Amino acid sequence: MNLILLHQEDFIGSRRVRLQGRRCNHAREVLNASNGRILQVGLLDGKTGSGTIVSVNEQSIDLDVLLEEEPPNPLPLTMILALPRPKVFKRVLQGLTAMGVKRIILLNSWRVDKSYWQSPALEPPAIREQLILGLEQSRDTILPSVERQPRFKPFVEDTLPTIAAGTCALVAHPLAGRPCPADITLPVTLAIGPEGGFTAYEIEKMTAAGLTPIHLGQRPLRVETAVPALIGRLLSPT
Amino acid sequence: MNLILLHQEDFIGSRRVRLQGRRCNHAREVLNASNGRILQVGLLDGKTGSGTIVSVNEQSIDLDVLLEEEPPNPLPLTMILALPRPKVFKRVLQGLTAMGVKRIILLNSWRVDKSYWQSPALEPPAIREQLILGLEQSRDTILPSVERQPRFKPFVEDTLPTIAAGTCALVAHPLAGRPCPADITLPVTLAIGPEGGFTAYEIEKMTAAGLTPIHLGQRPLRVETAVPALIGRLLSPT
Repeated sequence: MNLILLHQEDFIGSRRVRLQGRRCNHAREVLNASNGRILQVGLLDGKTGSGTIVSVNEQSIDLDVLLEEEPPNPLPLTMILALPRPKVFKRVLQGLTAMGVKRIILLNSWRVDKSYWQSPALEPPAIREQLILGLEQSRDTILPSVERQPRFKPFVEDTLPTIAAGTCALVAHPLAGRPCPADITLPVTLAIGPEGGFTAYEIEKMTAAGLTPIHLGQRPLRVETAVPALIGRLLSPT
Repeated sequence: MNLILLHQEDFIGSRRVRLQGRRCNHAREVLNASNGRILQVGLLDGKTGSGTIVSVNEQSIDLDVLLEEEPPNPLPLTMILALPRPKVFKRVLQGLTAMGVKRIILLNSWRVDKSYWQSPALEPPAIREQLILGLEQSRDTILPSVERQPRFKPFVEDTLPTIAAGTCALVAHPLAGRPCPADITLPVTLAIGPEGGFTAYEIEKMTAAGLTPIHLGQRPLRVETAVPALIGRLLSPT
């Protein structure tokens, strides 16, 4: 937790905030909360700044906050992710959020196990928990959107061409295409398949929608490795 | 498991291999082992190829193997990693192996919790387990070396300059240096700090040893995200 995320309902005065529960415990146990100490804070979907501790007790911590800075720049990348298995999904979602991705589309694919779509990890509160953890890690405040597209064909035929238009639109595929380029200056649309990859039919449909197949070498990588490797490569640090 | 790793002691004839235990179960349960089916195999620290199933029973599977292909190219990168907490360490070790890193140096640092050095995850059999999983993932056969350097100063003063010499030698540091370059043509030496980063003193010592501080943007990332992002960026796919 490199930043304490505040919600509108935490405010008990125009600049006064009361933390309880998880954030209060973290401030006390990890950040050694005591009066006068300054913590990094940010308002969910708003600005970031500092919070000076003005009181500490067993149940809560009060802060005097000043929110004047912009959150870090979003990453100009739309991520289209074949739904991974739930445990991996949580970590990948948190990592994507920490890297600054603001639009995440969960896509079905032939090799996505149907049961994954019923996982509790896909419930909105479970998704939100991972997004919050990612924002806290990277000192960001802007929640990404997470969309479900459980039907491959209509999404790829009807929606994907519009998303891909005007962007550098790529689909990662270990067995085809050219090496992944680096430092793209356009916004990026990036699709990553399930363990085992997209099928030839799926790659054909995505190519027809405007995506170019690219690879990261001959080694099949796990999605949690491939995602940051591709993003780190495609976009230069800001 | 995209490749079944064979050991010399699996051979019961010049080309005949008997699988038992974990690999046998995987072949039966995930790969639907049956006579005549061809599996991807590789000999640990040797060549890769195919294994044709010639018999299947409850306890074992016999293969007729042909090993004529070279494993994928190693990644020309030496990874110097401030020892992460054990759970993260396991995943990072597996990911580094899958990406093709062949030399991994675990380094102490001010912000590395001393207890991490006593973790069972650092026992040689536990390390080997993660390396094998990484090789199986990326169809590789060549085990990386994993060294421990629990004393920062003597390593950085006496050993690091020799490792860095003739390479593009970098230390990732969120708060200093220039943006991480892409597509390095030299071999790379890459140091990554603990959660919270290297201290100013440590960065100074590493700079004196020949490393250049670089960053991936203003967002602090978890080590499991930063490692593949930096590697994916620094080296072009082969």
